Amino acid sequence: MTLRDEILEQPRSLERLIETQWRPIRDIASALGREEIDTIFLTARGTSDNAGRYAKYLWGACNGLPVALAAPSLFSVYETPPRLNRTAVLGISQSGQSPDIVSVMREGRRQGRPTLAITNAPDSPLAEAAEWVIDIAAGPEKAIAATKSYTGQLTAIALLSAALSDDGERYDLVRRVPQWIAETLTLEQEIERIVQRYRYMRESVVIGRGYNYATAFEWALKLKELTYTVSEPYSSSDFRHGPIAVVDRGFPVFGVVPKGAVYADVMALLRSLKEDYAVELLVVSNADEAGALADRALRLPDAVPEWLTPIVAIVPVQLFVYHLTLAKGFDPDQPRGLSKVTRTE
Amino acid sequence: MTLRDEILEQPRSLERLIETQWRPIRDIASALGREEIDTIFLTARGTSDNAGRYAKYLWGACNGLPVALAAPSLFSVYETPPRLNRTAVLGISQSGQSPDIVSVMREGRRQGRPTLAITNAPDSPLAEAAEWVIDIAAGPEKAIAATKSYTGQLTAIALLSAALSDDGERYDLVRRVPQWIAETLTLEQEIERIVQRYRYMRESVVIGRGYNYATAFEWALKLKELTYTVSEPYSSSDFRHGPIAVVDRGFPVFGVVPKGAVYADVMALLRSLKEDYAVELLVVSNADEAGALADRALRLPDAVPEWLTPIVAIVPVQLFVYHLTLAKGFDPDQPRGLSKVTRTE
Repeated sequence: MTLRDEILEQPRSLERLIETQWRPIRDIASALGREEIDTIFLTARGTSDNAGRYAKYLWGACNGLPVALAAPSLFSVYETPPRLNRTAVLGISQSGQSPDIVSVMREGRRQGRPTLAITNAPDSPLAEAAEWVIDIAAGPEKAIAATKSYTGQLTAIALLSAALSDDGERYDLVRRVPQWIAETLTLEQEIERIVQRYRYMRESVVIGRGYNYATAFEWALKLKELTYTVSEPYSSSDFRHGPIAVVDRGFPVFGVVPKGAVYADVMALLRSLKEDYAVELLVVSNADEAGALADRALRLPDAVPEWLTPIVAIVPVQLFVYHLTLAKGFDPDQPRGLSKVTRTE
Repeated sequence: MTLRDEILEQPRSLERLIETQWRPIRDIASALGREEIDTIFLTARGTSDNAGRYAKYLWGACNGLPVALAAPSLFSVYETPPRLNRTAVLGISQSGQSPDIVSVMREGRRQGRPTLAITNAPDSPLAEAAEWVIDIAAGPEKAIAATKSYTGQLTAIALLSAALSDDGERYDLVRRVPQWIAETLTLEQEIERIVQRYRYMRESVVIGRGYNYATAFEWALKLKELTYTVSEPYSSSDFRHGPIAVVDRGFPVFGVVPKGAVYADVMALLRSLKEDYAVELLVVSNADEAGALADRALRLPDAVPEWLTPIVAIVPVQLFVYHLTLAKGFDPDQPRGLSKVTRTE
């Protein structure tokens, strides 16, 4: 299995996840509903941390649940964990191996809090430390850059949101995600042409907001892991508070801008970057207007509701980064300096 | 007042803050102590968000209080704010003007939660929306790049931590911060020489962890705002989970590595970056070993306890970025594309 195989496999791996995990996820949602929980205390690293960003917006907006991203070093290095009263502790990790993530979960258990792991390794130390486990069932992920495990984590988060709100319509929408992803995979040839233009790109910024703040982070992380270019993710708001100073004529900007609640705000920033700074703009969007503004566009299916766009939008981005890596002469299956499991304390 | 004036003014502005605000901060700590608070729900943008990162680690480690960084768009754009049960809502903003930050504070009031603003503008919309206000009393900050308001926010956060733990010894240590900062200001001539080496730097990463995760973010933000170079902040742990792929021979790495609990972990990463990747390393540290490993070092006073190092360490960094901006031929008092007050929804 190569990285490209795993990208292309996502419609199938997500279908399997939705089919096999919906029932256990509903049971977990019922169990959580019986607990006194005011806040989700979430811990993750790398790509899984980006999945956590999606949970923060989705559960905040659709389930009224504030999500706090944990500082693992408070548990593993400072050894002065905060009091976790009325939280549920959630760990997200593909491999379930990283000691710092496991230490947060163990502290949650010690304080008697409900604990949940979302992982691709249901017999890992993380899963063993947790009371409940959602197995993303992605199958072995061999490529060092995570792809199918990321969309699996997002899908598990979306299913848990639908289960917590006990909303069959939302579940039915999640079931359509594999088909929407299959549609974006047909963009591959076009993407292969588009990446040529970025052959000598050294740095970039990625703009997303709301649910797709996660997509901006994951896009930037994939660029760093595979193409070795410095790429920084921003919400449109944070970008205006200082970092906008870095852009200049021709600076490459990637925008995640599907239709939805934050569309107008992100578009206003992108329009200003295009008109006032003459940046080079590539967007992922299902809006004609965004496509017309940009130099290049990756088209998303029209029907995807905003809250599910992060699961779909990242897939053409994965293909973009994969082909850019090849265009730059690097090996996407052997990124330098990385290994599949990173053990951090 | 120029940016340099405001950097040099920090020992005085912080002395004034400590003198005038300790009493009201103790009153606020007492009032908070009478409320049922499990989590601090914190909202901020830009430099103030970096101050929030310090609060997350300091209050987590020293006061057992988990801090959740809010997603303002849930309040201002999605209009589906999470339930803020048993939280205290904190807004940090120099100007107190940004509508999205104010909207979080107003929602906290609406839900009947305790609300606190840390601001340099005690008659701003943010301060008016909050039940309690800590005035950082920095005096007018004219430069677009925030410096004295940042160290003021950190100092207010440190004082509130000392007040919450009712610890006179910790208060006495905060009172020594202005003198420690005055010592770092004597590095200016040396810094002016060091920056020459970075005249053509285009991109960089900054590594910090724990309390100084905030310093890494603020360093990177200042570089973007003033020198227009892309700079990304990381904890040593997160950096190993993917982004480490970007570094190569001669890649500029800035390390914030004072003595303390996370010192060994950050040093292990920096040593590997130096020995395995031959990066160019500049550190801010009070440890001889870190200075010996690095190509260049900015020396911190020995006596600063780890939890106060972020307030002191950022000052030579401000001077570094200021002089690098001059060396690159830009005007540090007129950064392109930025204005002092950024109004984001």
